Amino acid sequence: MPTTPALRSLEEHRAAALQLAAPLPAVVVALADALGLVLAQDVTTDAPLPRWDNSAMDGYAVRAEDVRDASPSTPVTLRVVADLPAGSSHRPTVGPGTAARIMTGAPVPAGADAIVPVEDTDAGTVTVRVGAPKVVGQHVRRAGEDAVPGDLVVAAGTLLGPAHVAAVASVGVAEVAVHRRPRVAVVSTGDELVAPGKPLAHGQIPDSNSWLLAAAVRDAGGEALRLGPVGDDPVALRDLLHGLDGTVDAIVTSGGVSVGAFDVVKAALLHEPDVAFVPVAVQPGKPQGLGRLPGGTPVFTLPGNPVSSFVSFELFVRPALLRMRGLVEVERPTTTAVVVDGWRTPPARAQVMPVRFVAPESDGRHVDTVPPAHGQRTDEHATSAPRHPRVVRATAGGSGSHLVARLAVAEGLAVVPAEIEQVAPGDLVTVLRITP
Amino acid sequence: MPTTPALRSLEEHRAAALQLAAPLPAVVVALADALGLVLAQDVTTDAPLPRWDNSAMDGYAVRAEDVRDASPSTPVTLRVVADLPAGSSHRPTVGPGTAARIMTGAPVPAGADAIVPVEDTDAGTVTVRVGAPKVVGQHVRRAGEDAVPGDLVVAAGTLLGPAHVAAVASVGVAEVAVHRRPRVAVVSTGDELVAPGKPLAHGQIPDSNSWLLAAAVRDAGGEALRLGPVGDDPVALRDLLHGLDGTVDAIVTSGGVSVGAFDVVKAALLHEPDVAFVPVAVQPGKPQGLGRLPGGTPVFTLPGNPVSSFVSFELFVRPALLRMRGLVEVERPTTTAVVVDGWRTPPARAQVMPVRFVAPESDGRHVDTVPPAHGQRTDEHATSAPRHPRVVRATAGGSGSHLVARLAVAEGLAVVPAEIEQVAPGDLVTVLRITP
Repeated sequence: MPTTPALRSLEEHRAAALQLAAPLPAVVVALADALGLVLAQDVTTDAPLPRWDNSAMDGYAVRAEDVRDASPSTPVTLRVVADLPAGSSHRPTVGPGTAARIMTGAPVPAGADAIVPVEDTDAGTVTVRVGAPKVVGQHVRRAGEDAVPGDLVVAAGTLLGPAHVAAVASVGVAEVAVHRRPRVAVVSTGDELVAPGKPLAHGQIPDSNSWLLAAAVRDAGGEALRLGPVGDDPVALRDLLHGLDGTVDAIVTSGGVSVGAFDVVKAALLHEPDVAFVPVAVQPGKPQGLGRLPGGTPVFTLPGNPVSSFVSFELFVRPALLRMRGLVEVERPTTTAVVVDGWRTPPARAQVMPVRFVAPESDGRHVDTVPPAHGQRTDEHATSAPRHPRVVRATAGGSGSHLVARLAVAEGLAVVPAEIEQVAPGDLVTVLRITP
Repeated sequence: MPTTPALRSLEEHRAAALQLAAPLPAVVVALADALGLVLAQDVTTDAPLPRWDNSAMDGYAVRAEDVRDASPSTPVTLRVVADLPAGSSHRPTVGPGTAARIMTGAPVPAGADAIVPVEDTDAGTVTVRVGAPKVVGQHVRRAGEDAVPGDLVVAAGTLLGPAHVAAVASVGVAEVAVHRRPRVAVVSTGDELVAPGKPLAHGQIPDSNSWLLAAAVRDAGGEALRLGPVGDDPVALRDLLHGLDGTVDAIVTSGGVSVGAFDVVKAALLHEPDVAFVPVAVQPGKPQGLGRLPGGTPVFTLPGNPVSSFVSFELFVRPALLRMRGLVEVERPTTTAVVVDGWRTPPARAQVMPVRFVAPESDGRHVDTVPPAHGQRTDEHATSAPRHPRVVRATAGGSGSHLVARLAVAEGLAVVPAEIEQVAPGDLVTVLRITP
C-alpha cells in the first residue's frame, strides 16, 4: 500500500500562496477609472481646503459689529453693495453699514467677518434688514479647516471608494497612480466537462469550475481570462500553461491534482522545478499545488470538486490576488458565530464548512441580531448587549465537496482548526464572511 | 422674516424616494456577464445532480460483498476489467470477482455498489489487491444527492456571486434572466465648479460632487453618466434634464436646491408638477427635492455641500438604485457601536455623522473586536462574549458639510434620531457600514 505523504498545515500553505504575490506595478489612470482600485502613491493637497474663507450659508456677508445689537424687534438695516453667487470673480469690500448678498461657498469679501443667514433677514436686495446678532466668524468656513497644504488626503494602499474619489477631485487632481488589476487565467480540466448549455453524452457533466473561478477572480477585483474546460492531455495542457506564462499575472487550474491515474495537471507540471504538489491538512481541499512557471508566473492548482475549488480559491488564491492589487488587508472579515446544528470533522485536518446565517431561534436569513440602539449607555448587562450570529451548514442534509447547487446558499465559511474533531450545537466557530 | 416650512421626517423622505423605484425589466445575458447582477427568474434543474451515481474517490468500483472480508493482512484480489476515467463513455459491467479502476466523478458501472479508494489497494492495473472492507454505497455519490429535477437552484432576487454562477453552470444553463443595471445621469451644478486639474480663478473650486456621485452610482451597481459641472443657468439646466428624461433610469443632481437667490436646480424644476422640493429634518442634507420628470424619469436633487451630497445619496438614492437592480434588501448593513468622543446634535432633526471605527481602547483601525474562537461553548459570561465596535467622528477636530477631504476616512454613518440632542461618550448608536 502506498504511504501517505506528510500533510502541510493550512496556515503554512496559505503563507506559501501569499508568498507568490506582490503588489503589481503602478499605472496612472484617469480619476473616472479609479473606483475600486488601490492607490499606489499618497495624494496630498498643495492648497488649503477650503481654499479661502467662504460662506457656510446663503445670506449676507456683514461686519459683525454692525449687527451686534440686531434683534427681531430692533432689526438693523444695511445697504447691499454686492451680490456674490458662488463662483463669482467679483471682489467687493464690505464697509461699515453695508452688506454683500452671498451664497454658500462664495469667498467672504474683504471687510466682512460674519454671515447672516437669509432666514434672519428680510431677504432685501437693495437694503437688507437683519433681525439677529452675529459674532465674528459666525457661519464662516475658514480656509484650511479641512486640510492645509502638505496634508495627506488619501494614503497609498487605500481601496478607492466614492468618498476617496471625491477627496482626490476636491484637491484638483484628475489622475492617480494605482495598482493595476491582476489578469488571471482560469483553466478547468477534465475530459468529462462540457460547456454549460451543450448536450451531454454518457459520463459528461457541465463545466462549472471555470465559471466559478472566473467569477471568483472578478469578485476579488481581478480580470479573468476563462479558458477551457480542457481535456486530460498533459502535453497539450503543459503547452497551454507555458503559452500563458509571462502573459498573465497568475494562473489558476482546477482538477487533475489528486492521486488518480489520470491527473492531468500533476502530469503536466510534474517536472517544473518551482511547482510543488503538496497535500494540505484541510477538508475539503487536500490536494494542492502551487509555485511558479519558468517565466515567473504564479500558478495555483486547485482540486476539481466544486466545493473544494471554491474553498481553495478562498483560502489560497484570493489573498494573493488582493495583495497583487496592492491591498494591505487581504483577509475576509471574520465573525464569531454560534453553531446551531453541529457536525463531525476529520481528525488532524482543519475543516472549512460552508455555512449560512440564521435568525435567532428561527430559520430566517437576517444576520444582524442587534436591535437598533440610539443613545443608550453601554452597560455590561444591558438588554442591548450584542449576541453572536447563528449559523447552520449550507449543505445540511448532505455533505461532500460535489454539492455545487447547495453551495449557492453559503454566506460564510466556518474554519474549524485541525485539533477539533466534533462541532456541537452551541459551539462557537470563526466564520469568514463571503457575501456582502 | 420668511416662515420656516414644515420639515419632512427622514423616514418619510426615504420612503418617498424608494417609491420612485421599481425593479428594471429583465434581460437575458450570457452567464459570463451575470456576476453582480440580480436574477430575475428562478433557475431550477431539470436533471438530478449528480446526474448519476458516481465515484467520490479515485480507486476501484467493486461489489461490496466481494471485499467484505478484506483486511491488510488478508487482502482480496480482483480482476480489473475496465479503466474509467471521468468523462469515459465506456459502460462496463462489474461481475463477481472483478473491479473497474475508476476516477473521482466517473459513473459507477453496472454491477458495482461500492468504491475502494486507491489508498486501500496496491493500485494494480491487471489485478488489484484490496486491503480493507467496504459496505454497499461506500464512497458513492448518489444521483440527486445535491438536487432532484424541479429543485430550485438559485432563486429570483439573488445577487449573483461566484457560487451562484457555478450552481447555474452546473445545471447546464448558459444564459440567465437578470435585471439590468440602472443608467443614472449625474449632474453637479454651480458656476464656481471647475473640472479637477483645470486652473482655478478667484472664487472657483474643483468639482468633486459629480465624481463623488458617479462613483457612488457605480458602487451601488449602476452605470453612471457623469455630466457637468453645469453652470447656474436654469433654462440651460432644464433643457439638459428634459433631454435626459426618458433616456436614463434616474437623474441625480447636486447643488442649487437651497433658499439662496441662485438656486439653479430649484429654478429649473420649479414648474414640474411631479417634482417637490421639501426640507427634510436631517443634518446634513436638509434641502432636498425629488419626483419625476414628464417622461417618467425619477429625479433626485441633492444639496451641494459634499458631505450633504454623500449622505443624501446614501439615505435616499442608493436604496432606490438597489431596488431598480431587483434587490429585495436595499439597506446597508448596520451595526451598533459605542461612541468614543461624543458630540452635539441639532434639535428636532435626525443627524447622520460620518464615523470611523477604532480598536478597543486604542486608536487602531480594526473593526472586529472578537478574538477568533473555535469550538468554545457559548456562555453568558464567557470571555469570548462579543463587544460593540467603537467609533469616533470621521471629521473630528472640525465639523461641517464641506469637509470633503476628511470624509475620505469615514467607514460608517452614525444615524442619530431626531429626538436625541446630545451624543455622549459611551452612548450606543446605529451605524450604517459604508465600506466593505
